[in-house]
Formats: sequence, structure tokens, C-alpha cells
Amino acid sequence: MQDRKIITMEHGAGGELMQALIKNTVLKNFSNKTAGRVGLDQLDDGATITFDQTEMTGEIVVTTDSYVIKPPVFPDSDIGRLSVSGTINDLAVMGATPLALTCALILPDGFKVELLERIIKSMNTAAEEVNVPIVTGDTKTIEKRGLDSIIVNTTGIGFANTIIQDSGLQAGDSIIINGFIADHGMALLLHREKLDLSAELISDAAPLWNMIESILSIKGPDGKPVVTAMKDPTRGGIAGTLNEMAKKSGNGIIIEENAIPVRSSVFSACEMLGIDPLEVANEGKVIIGVKSNYTEQILSVLKKHEYGINSAVIGKVTGDHKGKVLLKTKIGSLRYVNIPSGELIPRIC
Amino acid sequence: MQDRKIITMEHGAGGELMQALIKNTVLKNFSNKTAGRVGLDQLDDGATITFDQTEMTGEIVVTTDSYVIKPPVFPDSDIGRLSVSGTINDLAVMGATPLALTCALILPDGFKVELLERIIKSMNTAAEEVNVPIVTGDTKTIEKRGLDSIIVNTTGIGFANTIIQDSGLQAGDSIIINGFIADHGMALLLHREKLDLSAELISDAAPLWNMIESILSIKGPDGKPVVTAMKDPTRGGIAGTLNEMAKKSGNGIIIEENAIPVRSSVFSACEMLGIDPLEVANEGKVIIGVKSNYTEQILSVLKKHEYGINSAVIGKVTGDHKGKVLLKTKIGSLRYVNIPSGELIPRIC
Repeated sequence: MQDRKIITMEHGAGGELMQALIKNTVLKNFSNKTAGRVGLDQLDDGATITFDQTEMTGEIVVTTDSYVIKPPVFPDSDIGRLSVSGTINDLAVMGATPLALTCALILPDGFKVELLERIIKSMNTAAEEVNVPIVTGDTKTIEKRGLDSIIVNTTGIGFANTIIQDSGLQAGDSIIINGFIADHGMALLLHREKLDLSAELISDAAPLWNMIESILSIKGPDGKPVVTAMKDPTRGGIAGTLNEMAKKSGNGIIIEENAIPVRSSVFSACEMLGIDPLEVANEGKVIIGVKSNYTEQILSVLKKHEYGINSAVIGKVTGDHKGKVLLKTKIGSLRYVNIPSGELIPRIC
Repeated sequence: MQDRKIITMEHGAGGELMQALIKNTVLKNFSNKTAGRVGLDQLDDGATITFDQTEMTGEIVVTTDSYVIKPPVFPDSDIGRLSVSGTINDLAVMGATPLALTCALILPDGFKVELLERIIKSMNTAAEEVNVPIVTGDTKTIEKRGLDSIIVNTTGIGFANTIIQDSGLQAGDSIIINGFIADHGMALLLHREKLDLSAELISDAAPLWNMIESILSIKGPDGKPVVTAMKDPTRGGIAGTLNEMAKKSGNGIIIEENAIPVRSSVFSACEMLGIDPLEVANEGKVIIGVKSNYTEQILSVLKKHEYGINSAVIGKVTGDHKGKVLLKTKIGSLRYVNIPSGELIPRIC
């Protein structure tokens, strides 16, 4: 069976062509493929995950995400890095050690095998960073008139002794973010619209488990993490995520415009295009609620990590303004931060 | 926020419209949504799964599948029933009790909410049959020119004390199938091509866990299941699946044409269209390898189940013809059954 450089519908029939594509493009480029007795190389109907039974005082955590992004490859990142990072981060914000990932690909007829290979390699690099195997997958093809770009679904399985919920914020908690907001969304928007407002703008998708693991190890007198809630502010930006965290916790959040890390280039681009940076999608970012007397300790641990150097305390949780988010502006006034509704900017995550 | 009857791109922005769609269409129609402390209703970044720690002598099993099927709704079934059944069956053939499912939807701009609701209800019915909760999910939208129909990805998490692998066949084993082959593929093909060759033909997608659980409970003197290998013959038909099982086990398989259950209407339609029923996709079917002296016992248990009434022994495993599948034809000659290659019939699973 000869190698083909373009995906065709024949790949989708469950025969030898698909087997060859999977072996030469997927299996070859994933370096860590087992979490138990049956791994990806066996190409069985699924995979198995073994883990230390003595740890079984917690719960398994599962999360799933489909990624649709155009273009699928963009400056300094691609849908592969985005998907693995996003799924790792969804496990991480729930306090779960990632155990394994799945990789389900949907390829349009005519998609270049070279591009697929780049995406697979990126998935592998991101998974390797946090030492998580990709253990099972699925590959389907669709005719070109039915789909115009690759779709990647990743599901993550993890394990947590203490589950962190996005509803966990308590009055008095500090709100921390691990770096500049709106980089990913603006980088992608500018790239797609072929606007070159700044060379500095790159997508910052990254798997945050190593960093989050280190802050979860900081525990209070009750032996539990001093982190009370976490959530990754992707679609809807930090405006959407903070509102969800406020609403679910039944508390209010007050953030300070002066304290929110925004690159000046991003700020300018947002101003020029009339976009609120609070509503722009992020990747590689996490909003963290922390018991207030541990704020500085958590901040200093975050700042030691590659993905946390620009961490900042951006606000606090209050028992007032229940379910609402308020912004203290640079001139000192207070305004509500609303939940973004509708399609504000082109799809970027 | 008013209800909308058509999916629009605004649903994809991560805001209130999407929240309303998920609440009114997805959450409302799933009846079993928790497997641990955090379930689907919480709409957290993922879900948790608790299970009996005393069972922890085995492994977690994970499987993923994306479903792309046109039309997404067809006589007596739809992509919803297909996806849940397929994922349950992938866990089941590995010997795993299903613990939880995920549901990731990709919706094209313009998709009818009414159709989505029907699909969600079908997912729920199939999941309820085997008592498996749908615990977490993801919903994305794509503009119409990028995607022309719904895509469903389901990932299943299970637990197995004894993993059954598709490589487990041993010389002497019997090969059993739980009913008529090629029903699903031909039903869909005829429906799509608007050919009405028979009113009898309907898709037979079904979640097989209850049936498979009962045959796994039959154990040999070593305390292990007498089932040696299982696999569901979807894409590539039983030709593809038997070849994979033969190759992986390092043994040969001889099947008897006379013994393979094919409805006469399906056989005629295949003849007319020049299609080999062995290569037609199935749903709701499983190929089972069994230690030979337990063949009748397993068969009688299968026949008691709704989805196993037409079960039949179709062949046996041999130490000869390693990695190959042979068909003993109705006239007594032997021929190789090849792995289907390329796109034989339109995509149907």
C-alpha cells in the first residue's frame, strides 16, 4: 500500500489505507502511548489505564473538548497544541493529575498529510511537557463539501484526591491570573485578518498541569489545597469566566483594571478594533481563587514557572454584589462586567 | 434570552445563547447525568466518576469515537443512538463495565434545534438501556460553509477486572456473531439512495453491554471469562474485523458461508448492487471468540437477549492459515476473505 500525501475519502473506509495513515502519521509521532496494559499501538477498541490503587480515596475526572480552528496552523502554535493543552488544563483546573488523553480526528478529503503530521507532532510535544500519554483515538474522513478543515477532539482522564470546582470561591479570596490576557485571541484574529499590528503577539496555548500541580501542593491547616476555585478563561474571555465563577459561587468579584496584565500591543489592537480585552479568548491562562492569607505564597510559586512569570493578583471575592463581576476602572469608577453574549469576534478556540 | 429554533454562529461564542441551548436542549433531555460528585448539570470544566474501590484490581478502560453520518436521522435510528451504542460497545468488547460517557457536539450554523433534540433524546434512550450516565460534554458551532451536518463524539470510561483484547483468539475457539450481518449498512445505503427494496430493512444499532455482561459472567476453571476475544464489526464489515482478529492473534479463522446469518432481503440487495455483505458495516453486532467447549452455553445465553436472538456460530479459529480468514462457500470451496480496501460503499458509520 503506497503512501499518499493527501487525505482522500478512501482513507475513511476502515481498510488498509487508513491503517497505513494511522501507523505512519499518528503512531510514529506519538512518543508516549500507554497508561496500562492496552495502549495506542495495539489499535484495540480502546485503551486501559492502570494507576496506584492506594491513591483511591478520590475520584476519576473526565473532560472533553472539540477544537475547530481556522487556520488550523498559525504563528507559533496550532490546533494540536491547543487541543492537548486545553484538555490538560480542564483536568488541571479541577485539581486532577492527568492520566491519559484520547485523540479523535476528523479530516476533510484533500487535507495535506504533511499538515496533519505537524499537528500530531504538536499534540505530542504538549503531551510530553506534562508527561501524559495519548492512549486511544479515532480517525474519520469527510468529503470536502461537508467539512473544510480538520477537527480535533481530545478527552482527558485524570485523578484527583481533592476536586477543585469552579463554584468554590469564598468571600475574601484573592483572584489571581497567571499572565497577560487576550494574547491568543488577538494573535489569531490579527493573523487571520492579515493585520500586522505587532510582531510581539503570539498565541500562548500551553499545558499548565506542572504549574498547577505545584500550587495545589500548598495546603492549609485542614490538609486541603488553599486554592478554592480555578477555571481557564477561553471562549468569552475573563469576562465570561469570572461571571461564571461569581454566579456559581453565589459571591461577587471585584477586579481592578490597573492590575490586569494586558500587553500594550494587545491593548492598542483592542482599542483600534473596538474590542474589550476582557472578552477576548485566552489559552494557557487560568483564573485562580486563593484563600487571602496565602496570596503571596501562591503568587511566588506561580512566578517561578515558565507559564506563570507574569502572574498577578487582579481582584478579590466579596460577599456583596452576589453573582456579579465589577471592574474598578483606571479612573476609580466601578462598572459591571457583563457576560459576553453572541459572536463578538471570529471563532478562535 | 429568547429561545431560537435554528443554531446560529452566535451560539458558539461561549455566552448566554449557548448556555440556554445547552440547558433547554441537552441537560433537559438527559436523565442520568452524574457518576460522582460533579456531573453534567454543574457545567464545570469536566465531571468526576466515583466507583467502588474494592473493585480496584483491574483497569480503567477508555474509548473514543466521532460520528459523521448523513443523513443524521434515518428510519428507526439516528446518529445519537449510533454514537452512544458504538461507544458502549467498544467498552463492552474489552470486557469493561461502562461507568460514564461524554458527549461532544459540533453543530453547523442553520442546524435545526428540533433535530438536535431528537438526537439528544436518542442518546439518552440508548444510555438509559444500559444505565450509563452522560457526565460531561462540549458544544461547538461551525459556519455552514465549513460543515454541513452534525458531528457527535462520544468517549466512554469503563472498568474491567479482566480485560478482553481483540488479539485474544486461540486455536480451537469458536467464532459467534449475535445476529444478522449487514443490516445497518444496507438500510442506510438504501435509505440514502432512495431505493426501496424491502420494508424489512432497518438499522440495528444497539448498546450491547447487558448482553455482553451476561456472557462475561460465564467463567472457566481458572475463574476467567471463557470469552477469549470480542470486536464489533462496524466499518469494513465482518471481513475487516475477522481479518484484524486473525492477524492480531497470529491464528487463522475459517468461517462458513452457510452459517452466517444474512437476511434474504439484505442478500438480494447486496447481489443486485454488487456488494459483498461481509464488507458491509454493522451496528449492534459483536464477533465473539469462545473456548470451544463453552460454545453452546454462550450461544444459549446470547439467544435469551433481545439483541442476540439470531446468534449463530459462524466459524472457528485454527492454528493454520496464520493471520488469514478463509470462507468455506456454500458449494464447499475455500477462498480467502480479504481486508476491504478503499471506499467500497458510501460512509455509513
